[in-house]
Amino acid sequence: LHPLVERITAGDRRAAARAMTLIENDAPEKRALLRELYAFGGRAHIVGFTGSPGAGKSTLVDQVIAYLRGQGQRVGVLAVDPSSPFSGGALLGDRIRMTRHSADPGVYIRSMGTRGAVGGLAKAARDVLYVLEAYGCDVILVETVGVGQSELDVLTVADTVGLVLTPGAGDHVQTAKSGIMEIADVYVVNKADLPGADMLVREIELMLRDKSSFREDWRPPIVRTVAAQGAGTDELWSAVTNHLAHLKHGGWRAHRRRKRHREETMAVLLSMFRRHVEWLADEYPDWQDILEGAAGEDPQTGAEALWDRLGLARRPGGDP
Amino acid sequence: LHPLVERITAGDRRAAARAMTLIENDAPEKRALLRELYAFGGRAHIVGFTGSPGAGKSTLVDQVIAYLRGQGQRVGVLAVDPSSPFSGGALLGDRIRMTRHSADPGVYIRSMGTRGAVGGLAKAARDVLYVLEAYGCDVILVETVGVGQSELDVLTVADTVGLVLTPGAGDHVQTAKSGIMEIADVYVVNKADLPGADMLVREIELMLRDKSSFREDWRPPIVRTVAAQGAGTDELWSAVTNHLAHLKHGGWRAHRRRKRHREETMAVLLSMFRRHVEWLADEYPDWQDILEGAAGEDPQTGAEALWDRLGLARRPGGDP
Repeated sequence: LHPLVERITAGDRRAAARAMTLIENDAPEKRALLRELYAFGGRAHIVGFTGSPGAGKSTLVDQVIAYLRGQGQRVGVLAVDPSSPFSGGALLGDRIRMTRHSADPGVYIRSMGTRGAVGGLAKAARDVLYVLEAYGCDVILVETVGVGQSELDVLTVADTVGLVLTPGAGDHVQTAKSGIMEIADVYVVNKADLPGADMLVREIELMLRDKSSFREDWRPPIVRTVAAQGAGTDELWSAVTNHLAHLKHGGWRAHRRRKRHREETMAVLLSMFRRHVEWLADEYPDWQDILEGAAGEDPQTGAEALWDRLGLARRPGGDP
Repeated sequence: LHPLVERITAGDRRAAARAMTLIENDAPEKRALLRELYAFGGRAHIVGFTGSPGAGKSTLVDQVIAYLRGQGQRVGVLAVDPSSPFSGGALLGDRIRMTRHSADPGVYIRSMGTRGAVGGLAKAARDVLYVLEAYGCDVILVETVGVGQSELDVLTVADTVGLVLTPGAGDHVQTAKSGIMEIADVYVVNKADLPGADMLVREIELMLRDKSSFREDWRPPIVRTVAAQGAGTDELWSAVTNHLAHLKHGGWRAHRRRKRHREETMAVLLSMFRRHVEWLADEYPDWQDILEGAAGEDPQTGAEALWDRLGLARRPGGDP
């Protein structure tokens, strides 16, 4: 085992931080680290929380951390802000939160901006999550800042997605982007003591009633919370664990894992292939000429000519 | 020559419309059409206009159409709206514009949404532009709705980009996204009769003075227009043609063309490679297993194993 991975699995926080930074910086060790860390993937229950700014996500996540620590679970938090270039320790409202938990080895908080996200924020998040899983986190909470496309992409790494909505605040179901409504596994109506909470719950119910089918056969429950008072956290967590049980029981979790693995392997293969072609173009002027269309041929014709030169076997093993 | 291409080059509008629809629909004829249409690429001067909604882009584009028609030039207009799923004839405020020009064979207007943009809106736009170039357009105006990332991508197809700003309107240089300021080849201060125009020009000048270098050695000029009164169109067009002359003279246009050709050829090669791997996975269960990580190996290890099986030649022609 890589010495860093050994230290991470022994619960060494500084080793975990160092590994995440190496991964985000695309350091030479990255590949070797990820190769070993991969084995820890799937150990934690990864739960994403999203919703408009002001919906109370941070307070809610704080309540969930306290709840899980009360159960003796080890908790990781990944706070993702696609609008920030910075990654590392302290982002968002995390400084206070991190100070509060700094003495508790059972909580690990990490922020992520776009800096280390060359291959996309979702891929970068997935890579960092392996470290938190190796560190022994039972649950990892992925908190996003807003509800943009980047946030939606990041949430594909989560097993369970909680969408946090509040009464008033313009968070009406009709006005919410359909993309974000589609990925919710649990609807959280936070600030449920405010007027309009019943109305919001009804709107979500109506929307759910209109659906003819549900993704992965899961009908998302609606949970009311008042995060500022710690109310509803147990109901919320019970809904979240029910969802994980459903994913496991129905084979959905294994299915998702295979699909993600396939996408990641294909992405690595495609980048190998691109490097291979670029190397050929560096070595051979005629490859360069065809790539750049020096003879006036179109890209399709050029690509077909180059493809033929690659001499790829029609069948593996060189069968005819 | 493909009969459709023949008709397009003879100035048949319906043939042009049909070809664009076939291309956008990813029809079987698409590849054959693009292969032949490619030869017409680079004939037209492609000029993009972007800027916040309300900056007066449509009025400005109308003035430019009238100006160019007065010079006897054939004009194409591609109006791109990434927020719309629809492509074809009438989008944006184009219905009126199209009616006005419907009797003029020297103007061709086409709208584009995201429907036909499977490989990205920029690629889809570039493919449609080939048709307009084959149709004989001397100038093609690409008009975008807003200033989002999709619009920025689309504008990479343009030789010259005009950024339309207006006094007041929150279009201050400091608040404008830097991405959009960076791609401007000509700054157009429209509604230049409004108070604040001098201030806006000064802001742009200050920003330009702070730059230590310019992309492709081109210092973007600032042009004032009052599009609603047709004022400044000649100065605007003179700045735009100066830019094209600079691109040609400095070899930048040829350089851009080579770069774009390389990217397009690489994209075709990558999609061939992906299909090849997917075909192998369909044929051979062990490929499928490795792609999906059935044995628990990580994606990097799996990809390397598959790569070795591809047996790609180390050098073209099978040299050692």
